[in-house]
Amino acid sequence: MHDTSTTDRTATDQTAAEQTRVEQALVERVLRSFADTEDPRLKDVLESLVRHLHSFIREIRLTEAEWTAAIDFLTACGRITDDRRQEFILLSDVLGASMQTVTVNNELDGDATEATVFGPFFVDDAPSIPFGGDIAGGATGEPCWVEGTVTGTDGAPIPDARIEVWECDEDGLYDVQYGDERTAARARLETRGDGTYGFWGLRPVPYPIPADGPVGRLLAATGRSPLRAAHLHFMVSAPGFRTLVTHIFVEGDEQLVIGDSVFGVKDSLIKRFEAQGAGAPVPTARDLGGGPWSRTRFDIVLSLDPSAH
Amino acid sequence: MHDTSTTDRTATDQTAAEQTRVEQALVERVLRSFADTEDPRLKDVLESLVRHLHSFIREIRLTEAEWTAAIDFLTACGRITDDRRQEFILLSDVLGASMQTVTVNNELDGDATEATVFGPFFVDDAPSIPFGGDIAGGATGEPCWVEGTVTGTDGAPIPDARIEVWECDEDGLYDVQYGDERTAARARLETRGDGTYGFWGLRPVPYPIPADGPVGRLLAATGRSPLRAAHLHFMVSAPGFRTLVTHIFVEGDEQLVIGDSVFGVKDSLIKRFEAQGAGAPVPTARDLGGGPWSRTRFDIVLSLDPSAH
Repeated sequence: MHDTSTTDRTATDQTAAEQTRVEQALVERVLRSFADTEDPRLKDVLESLVRHLHSFIREIRLTEAEWTAAIDFLTACGRITDDRRQEFILLSDVLGASMQTVTVNNELDGDATEATVFGPFFVDDAPSIPFGGDIAGGATGEPCWVEGTVTGTDGAPIPDARIEVWECDEDGLYDVQYGDERTAARARLETRGDGTYGFWGLRPVPYPIPADGPVGRLLAATGRSPLRAAHLHFMVSAPGFRTLVTHIFVEGDEQLVIGDSVFGVKDSLIKRFEAQGAGAPVPTARDLGGGPWSRTRFDIVLSLDPSAH
Repeated sequence: MHDTSTTDRTATDQTAAEQTRVEQALVERVLRSFADTEDPRLKDVLESLVRHLHSFIREIRLTEAEWTAAIDFLTACGRITDDRRQEFILLSDVLGASMQTVTVNNELDGDATEATVFGPFFVDDAPSIPFGGDIAGGATGEPCWVEGTVTGTDGAPIPDARIEVWECDEDGLYDVQYGDERTAARARLETRGDGTYGFWGLRPVPYPIPADGPVGRLLAATGRSPLRAAHLHFMVSAPGFRTLVTHIFVEGDEQLVIGDSVFGVKDSLIKRFEAQGAGAPVPTARDLGGGPWSRTRFDIVLSLDPSAH
């Protein structure tokens, strides 16, 4: 008589090894199918995608019901997506994929200002304003004076840098969500000869990403907040420098603790928005009718454009 | 004077380490966002998905233009998908994800027959036929006699096993693609008391998956054939056994060398379809009018249902 338990265990081990071999062989077969791809970069991207996609399926032992649920989820994302709604970008955002893409494309460079997600609300050709101008254009919210200096990583000020800013109103809506053709709470301006800039914006407030679709259901199923931490968007460019797409966030915003739904926050981008007392001198001598206002400072350091040297 | 090249290298190494830390910290932050997920399996699946998705982006250093192209690709898949066309399943198929899901859900079990992809063309309630019946229902193609025995892994025949079979016609079309309500080239039958089955089908031919959408453009860009290797679908079930979804393929089909577009082929599923001479005895004494016909044998071994013991 032989020890059947040892025999069984050996048979099980052999089956497990053969199963692993079959799964791995499938991965290799899929990789080989891309051998004739003309564009070498496309080939590299697809090979990496296939490796990770198959590792995911094998590691988690994805069930056929889960695969069907994934197909249904993507189909629902496709169905709700149109010219005004982009559920695939939202999906990328809430999985942190958008922010990771920003991170790998904007590598750290000394004390250069960090980048964050672009978001869906930028509009070309926003109104041009002078130093001290107001971006509100009728959007409601608490006035906020925003100022700073744009320099290179060597500390030298950059004159005539182009700054584009945009944000939501106090109800959490961007102008493009109003449903009419108004332009509000966005503008472009330039730094002065000494690299400084200043404008009147609105104190940012948290707002939800669109949560009435499949991505919203995913957030609900995972107990996550759809809110973005309050922020003000910046895009800053100057010849010879890497264009910076970023936000500033509001120190003390509780959404910073709960979590920004698209993972856009970096500690270096959290700024103090100081509420101003009744007697505080108002920049540009603007008449605020005695109402509340705040101010913040955002000094911006641009990285040299790597393609320019 | 110090060795500047060493200093530069150290600074570069430090920046690279810090960049890695920032990317990894983002992954951890996304993983933490799922901490409150109620369903533990959903949590595991999402965590694995996030790890692999971020590893892909970081490893390949996905550019922002490539990210945009990926969003546009998924959007185009969504736009072409409707009740009759499922581009997300095609995408899963051509990346081998469907076949890998089948593979992890149908682990090897001794000499049990291997599974392969289900495909989009199965229809419930296909016509029932007796032993020796014809599944064609008006679909054109070369007649092919298909026979075999269904047994368990212990070799014991399984009587009254349910066999469902479906395939395309000689033009590469399934009945559901005809655009009318015809049922053709599909049927269900049962094994006899001794576990044997036999029916008249059509000799399978290669056909393309739908290639006029984004998945077709992906295949074109990677120099891949949209053709599936010729095959005949089987779904076999019996109480107490794991339901088997599989195909048989045609030995000598050149698409087996070029590659099946959805990676469904397993060597054990390639069968000899033998062309029969003029004098060969015709099973069921069917009158074939002297035309060409072939025959094949597919013995099926079912695995015990793991949930039944």
